[in-house]
Amino acid sequence: MKIPGNVLDFLRKGKQFFIATHISPDGDALGSSIALSLALESLGKETIIYDKDPVPEFYRFLPGHERFTQSISNLKFEISNLILLDCNELERTGIEKIEFVSSAVIDHHETKKEFGDIKWIEPQAAATGLMLFYVIRELGVKITKEIAINLYAAIAIDTGTFRYSNTTPEVLRVAAELIEAGADPSYIAESLYEAWSESRFRLLLKVLNTLEINNGIAITLVTLDMFKETGALVEDTENFVGFPRLLKSVRISALFREVENNYYKISLRSRGRGMNVAKIAAEFGGGGHRNAAGYRVRADFKTAKETLLKKLNTLPR
Amino acid sequence: MKIPGNVLDFLRKGKQFFIATHISPDGDALGSSIALSLALESLGKETIIYDKDPVPEFYRFLPGHERFTQSISNLKFEISNLILLDCNELERTGIEKIEFVSSAVIDHHETKKEFGDIKWIEPQAAATGLMLFYVIRELGVKITKEIAINLYAAIAIDTGTFRYSNTTPEVLRVAAELIEAGADPSYIAESLYEAWSESRFRLLLKVLNTLEINNGIAITLVTLDMFKETGALVEDTENFVGFPRLLKSVRISALFREVENNYYKISLRSRGRGMNVAKIAAEFGGGGHRNAAGYRVRADFKTAKETLLKKLNTLPR
Repeated sequence: MKIPGNVLDFLRKGKQFFIATHISPDGDALGSSIALSLALESLGKETIIYDKDPVPEFYRFLPGHERFTQSISNLKFEISNLILLDCNELERTGIEKIEFVSSAVIDHHETKKEFGDIKWIEPQAAATGLMLFYVIRELGVKITKEIAINLYAAIAIDTGTFRYSNTTPEVLRVAAELIEAGADPSYIAESLYEAWSESRFRLLLKVLNTLEINNGIAITLVTLDMFKETGALVEDTENFVGFPRLLKSVRISALFREVENNYYKISLRSRGRGMNVAKIAAEFGGGGHRNAAGYRVRADFKTAKETLLKKLNTLPR
Repeated sequence: MKIPGNVLDFLRKGKQFFIATHISPDGDALGSSIALSLALESLGKETIIYDKDPVPEFYRFLPGHERFTQSISNLKFEISNLILLDCNELERTGIEKIEFVSSAVIDHHETKKEFGDIKWIEPQAAATGLMLFYVIRELGVKITKEIAINLYAAIAIDTGTFRYSNTTPEVLRVAAELIEAGADPSYIAESLYEAWSESRFRLLLKVLNTLEINNGIAITLVTLDMFKETGALVEDTENFVGFPRLLKSVRISALFREVENNYYKISLRSRGRGMNVAKIAAEFGGGGHRNAAGYRVRADFKTAKETLLKKLNTLPR
């Protein structure tokens, strides 16, 4: 991976950096930001890392997560150098107004906006954390255990711990180096995937017990009563829609979440080269990506479900 | 990893090899056996690969799985060289009587029995498939796509696709080489984890609905009736014992499988640096690895469960 020279110059010359990442931060956004902050500070520079949203509970095992600030007022220095990580437009950070002198973008999402004086966008990279591994090494910074854990977690989450098609030989070799630098694969995987509360697990079981499969379409339901019965929270349903994908016969998974009486939020998932669920969601006024999308509907469950099935079953497989 | 010279001599000198692996074969047993068979045949040798049990449906994506035979009669050659893979005693293969001239063992389970004229047992190796990667390379055989897929699947399944504590830098670097040789990580992961039959999924739900947690010990039960009700097979319970590990509070997961009335097979799992469940299993006449072990007991479920809980609760956490 070739790092543009001006990215390295920008990082080498600056003394103070304001690093921002996207709202609803995931492991790549968080791990990349913390790793870069730790690396730049080890070179005697000052950094602030910003996310509009708090670090989710299950990412608080990342060493240095407490560095994140959610406010852009009362900063310890005035912003001159702005860095966007794991996103490539200011809007994705949720910052409405900010003053700065120059800006750099390091991201692996395909760019849409023209933001950034200096840009390194590498859609082929499995994770922004992978790009930062090379940046940090090129800056001559020792990859400490703390940096290694953050980069490993960033890469692990964006490759589904090496299960997605972006798992290249390079990804595995960088992960090997990060283990040598102190990242513990089982500790990180356990922290990412095996830290559920009992109420979340009980809710999952209730949801999976509602599973119906029609013509390759898996339908599951989570009701307000289930939240009450288990004590689980709405955020606990994250990734529930993925579980029916264990089944070979399932092409599309749809999770209906009761928001209030006769009002449902529907999450849709399809497999890699399968149906474009963003198009389906758009027909119901929602949106998303090819393999992950959603919409909301005011109807009773039976009607909402039948409307979706009818739509899906009229489409070519 | 240092391959004993006599193992290589044995493989180089022989012309015909009967390769056997353990009953209830997992991905490491199957992938290792197929890979060695393909490698030896590419050197002009003849091989038979044997497992007493059929290749489970969800492992039939492994190229070459149709090489397995379940019978030791009417073989295409008389057995002279016997190789045990992924097990180290004849008993584990389910073969009661067999005649052979010399035998070799290649395994990563800690040895108990004295079987084998030639032995290479490497308990530090994450998978027998990892050991065979070196063997095959040392024999001067090109790692074909077919061999790569089998070895990658073997390593993937025994490391939980690089999530367990046996995920070393070496494991990741070998996996990287196997991708370069043609193994597709996302195809293998989908084949391993997202190709369940509906009956298997229904069985999982029934099993998870039995979950009890006592002092960090998760107990689940699968009964003969559940198999009947869902139409699922014994092999479908593979990895079921891992699901309760999603829960942060679970230190040990124990799955009780009813083999016949008042006779249970118990699978135990612990976390990375947690309790050594092989020691627990050994106290009940079973065995295994530090984090994955098992034993069998003749008792009713309640007694069997209480005996295990009593044992576990007397041990330091």
